[in-house]
Amino acid sequence: MRNTMQDVPLLLSRILAHGSTVHGRSQVSTWTGGGEPRRRSFAEIGRRAAQLAHALGELGVREGEPTATLMWNTVEHVEAYFAIPSSGAVLHTLNLRLPVGQLEFIVNHAADRVILVNGSLLPLLAPLLPRLESVEHLVVVGEGDTSVLDGCRSQVHEYETLIADRPTTYDWPQLDERHPAAMCYTSGTTGDPKGVVYSHRSVYLHSMQVNMAESFALTDHDVSMPIVPMFHVNAWGLPHAAFMTGIGMLLTDRFLQPAAIAEMVERERPTHAAAVPTIWQGLLAELAANKRDISSLRTVVIGGSACPPSLMRAFQEQHGVALVQAWGMTEMSPLGTIALPPGGLTEDEEWTYRVTQGRFPASVEARLVGPSGEVMPWDGESAGELEVRGPWIAAAYFGGAGEEPMRPEDKFHDGWLRTGDVGTISPDGYLTLTDRSKDVIKSGGEWISSMELENHLMAHPEVAEAAVVAVPDERWGERPLATVVLKPDATADYAALRAFLADRVPRWQIPERWAVIESVPKTSVGKFDKKVIRRQYADGDLDVTQL
Amino acid sequence: MRNTMQDVPLLLSRILAHGSTVHGRSQVSTWTGGGEPRRRSFAEIGRRAAQLAHALGELGVREGEPTATLMWNTVEHVEAYFAIPSSGAVLHTLNLRLPVGQLEFIVNHAADRVILVNGSLLPLLAPLLPRLESVEHLVVVGEGDTSVLDGCRSQVHEYETLIADRPTTYDWPQLDERHPAAMCYTSGTTGDPKGVVYSHRSVYLHSMQVNMAESFALTDHDVSMPIVPMFHVNAWGLPHAAFMTGIGMLLTDRFLQPAAIAEMVERERPTHAAAVPTIWQGLLAELAANKRDISSLRTVVIGGSACPPSLMRAFQEQHGVALVQAWGMTEMSPLGTIALPPGGLTEDEEWTYRVTQGRFPASVEARLVGPSGEVMPWDGESAGELEVRGPWIAAAYFGGAGEEPMRPEDKFHDGWLRTGDVGTISPDGYLTLTDRSKDVIKSGGEWISSMELENHLMAHPEVAEAAVVAVPDERWGERPLATVVLKPDATADYAALRAFLADRVPRWQIPERWAVIESVPKTSVGKFDKKVIRRQYADGDLDVTQL
Repeated sequence: MRNTMQDVPLLLSRILAHGSTVHGRSQVSTWTGGGEPRRRSFAEIGRRAAQLAHALGELGVREGEPTATLMWNTVEHVEAYFAIPSSGAVLHTLNLRLPVGQLEFIVNHAADRVILVNGSLLPLLAPLLPRLESVEHLVVVGEGDTSVLDGCRSQVHEYETLIADRPTTYDWPQLDERHPAAMCYTSGTTGDPKGVVYSHRSVYLHSMQVNMAESFALTDHDVSMPIVPMFHVNAWGLPHAAFMTGIGMLLTDRFLQPAAIAEMVERERPTHAAAVPTIWQGLLAELAANKRDISSLRTVVIGGSACPPSLMRAFQEQHGVALVQAWGMTEMSPLGTIALPPGGLTEDEEWTYRVTQGRFPASVEARLVGPSGEVMPWDGESAGELEVRGPWIAAAYFGGAGEEPMRPEDKFHDGWLRTGDVGTISPDGYLTLTDRSKDVIKSGGEWISSMELENHLMAHPEVAEAAVVAVPDERWGERPLATVVLKPDATADYAALRAFLADRVPRWQIPERWAVIESVPKTSVGKFDKKVIRRQYADGDLDVTQL
Repeated sequence: MRNTMQDVPLLLSRILAHGSTVHGRSQVSTWTGGGEPRRRSFAEIGRRAAQLAHALGELGVREGEPTATLMWNTVEHVEAYFAIPSSGAVLHTLNLRLPVGQLEFIVNHAADRVILVNGSLLPLLAPLLPRLESVEHLVVVGEGDTSVLDGCRSQVHEYETLIADRPTTYDWPQLDERHPAAMCYTSGTTGDPKGVVYSHRSVYLHSMQVNMAESFALTDHDVSMPIVPMFHVNAWGLPHAAFMTGIGMLLTDRFLQPAAIAEMVERERPTHAAAVPTIWQGLLAELAANKRDISSLRTVVIGGSACPPSLMRAFQEQHGVALVQAWGMTEMSPLGTIALPPGGLTEDEEWTYRVTQGRFPASVEARLVGPSGEVMPWDGESAGELEVRGPWIAAAYFGGAGEEPMRPEDKFHDGWLRTGDVGTISPDGYLTLTDRSKDVIKSGGEWISSMELENHLMAHPEVAEAAVVAVPDERWGERPLATVVLKPDATADYAALRAFLADRVPRWQIPERWAVIESVPKTSVGKFDKKVIRRQYADGDLDVTQL
């Protein structure tokens, strides 16, 4: 027996056509720095996306070819989000916060021929251009000093001029749903950035998930404010989700200061926002200094890094706004988990769920792989490296133009993505991450979380900072080395610190090796750089006391 | 460039695995007629579904083979919903309300070898068995008089005995997502019933849509009560949607009387329900006679036939319950539209949307095809036959075991499903159905809605019933013939009726031909049987006055 269903592909052109007709009245409002925002209806965006597709076609953009954007969150970026993939090309969003060396690597690796760039970002791009050999066309969006482009090899176009007077409809191709739609490079802390290529299918399914009541639960009654940049994993899928169900959007452009965000929220009254925790930390301080009405916000999705529970409580208690943690990766489109508690709980019980990374949806299959490669139970206690599988999860990295995809064994195996995160899963599917797998200490067939030890140590009144790393041990394979930065005038009392830990972790996890250091070495983005500590230990550069 | 996503198929076994782990605590409660409902957790259902799959395997059920259920809405039916397709077989739900001749046709056409049947339904099935040649195994679920099966050729099994002591896990096959998962026959008013075969892909996508905030918007904080039978288009997708997001379910078993439903709602406090309008009409009367607390219900989805606005208003005003119209077809899995109003409206404005059939989601592409085959605009006025396209919409009917699918031209053409419904679509995508395409009157290249004329005529104080049909006309192709049943003691005043219509419809739509009849001929399900009227007119059996 065969099914009798239509074989209709899941395509972004369908989302665009739907959003610009059924939800044609919904709007994207782009902040302008203070006055009235620029407002554009989905219907108009649909027409302009068609015009942009015609223009890109004339520039020679072909099916399956990456076309880059170096842009803030603006309505023109939304137009590019739909025009490029709907016409069969691949939206390649460039992360404007990367070190210029990585940006150069990425454009050359993808062999981008066309870059849409905000005028305000030309000073960033111009110095790189001589080393971007593939780039033939620059399309400048919005105002900016184009004189910095004088003498560059690329042809320079002005966005509005380029799309003007072109047909406002486009006969979008009926692509295979596995056709590439968009790509994003991860900004890994080690090695070159790696490209992830999303398909129409993966973006479409991810958009449905975002709109499910168990996820962001948005409709055309909402206005969402993706503060998360549109160059960061498709702004967590919000632009696509918006056109699927008519969600209004409020875009920040380049105005990301806490005061600007507070003003936008008060004046435009979004019901939903999405951003990394630091934005909300800044907003909380701003609101304490300058009162604003942010009562329109119902839910704020927090991702990118763990949200301090104190921040969640502060927004809940002071502003009645629910900060909801979500966890994902560039390799996961990005939605992996969301920390909405199950039903039927007291508020206190709900908090025990809200501080986790959250729960998996049906389309994200998860397993924990323990120290010896065994699959660990979901008991909320057994730790393992998290591996995931699903239709919007990466199976490989982009190999470069004309190259085969790359499948490094430490990231992909057995059909699963290795997330590089270690944690536990509760019987009801809530994930708690405790460490990065490269930092976990593998001691006698069990895992010790470096992060957990650090958090306990840093709670001690004499300790300013602490970093715990794995060091080789003849008997146990690995054991933890605790390096601590003492507060001014404190003295090192290792026995006291061990006793402090003994009240908080199992006995076998307590480090034997201790060292006082001046400061914890950090990476360029401020994370603990444990590689350096491990090397210092190996080189004998640390003054280690063994107890 | 190729995408780098995992190619993970969309399978019901994934929904089952997810529901029975992450949402393992969620429950299905099956009503027992008064006492405590039978409660079973999703975790337990998952284990029992595995046991059932092992048992069916032992009965020789093979991949791709239909396996039938003749069952009420019960937890065992949920077990069959997942065990059968997850193992690769095809869930074939039999409609126990069909005339026995159709039931016989359907079982023979599908060549079902196994039927799971509720004990209480054996008196319906037993007399048919001698003519059901393919059936080898009957699995009796729940209590019933099995003596009626004495002498039947099939092997008879008792459900609990059959599944007992089997392994509670099953290594579900990694099927292609286009593998058939379930089938339903339409109970067409003309011709033999036609089978629609859903795929894992179509059911999975449909489940995501059901759970989207713009559709049913359900999570594990909800308990849904699908009063719509599980043999009726997969209970509108609710059992699948429930396991996808952990929605609790309250199942009626065979207790469908208004008093029983009122008691269930008061005692079990579901937040959501789904049923045809007659159920709610009955419940409204019951609640007027016997007060019950139904305040737990937030939304009730109404489908199957149009919901009288008076009923929607009565529930809203008397009980604070929102009855929400939805429209679909067996050929559409069934979700086509849902009548939730857009945002930012007054309550009065919302009602203008709530009385429509509703709005299309992104995955249901719609077009109206006018009298001459041209695509009509979405202006809320231009009528056309509704055609739909999408990943959970049929492209054909099941041809029978070993036969090619059937694609009758009046149902399928050009990649679209012809719904057989005529209506209009507003610029914002809300559908209003005005007629069946076979009943619409094609007059001079324009369409006249028979239903609209009937509704106006029936609003006249002298008219009890009215049926309008198309009759051949030399000049216009077709013109409307109005047949009216007068109220007692009323006399036929055609001029007055014409004047009455003239205030309500365009002049050219007013019928010239009139006849008084004793009663409108009806089909077995109570619908106007317009075929009979057309034949009476053709045969000269009506006393027609021409004005």
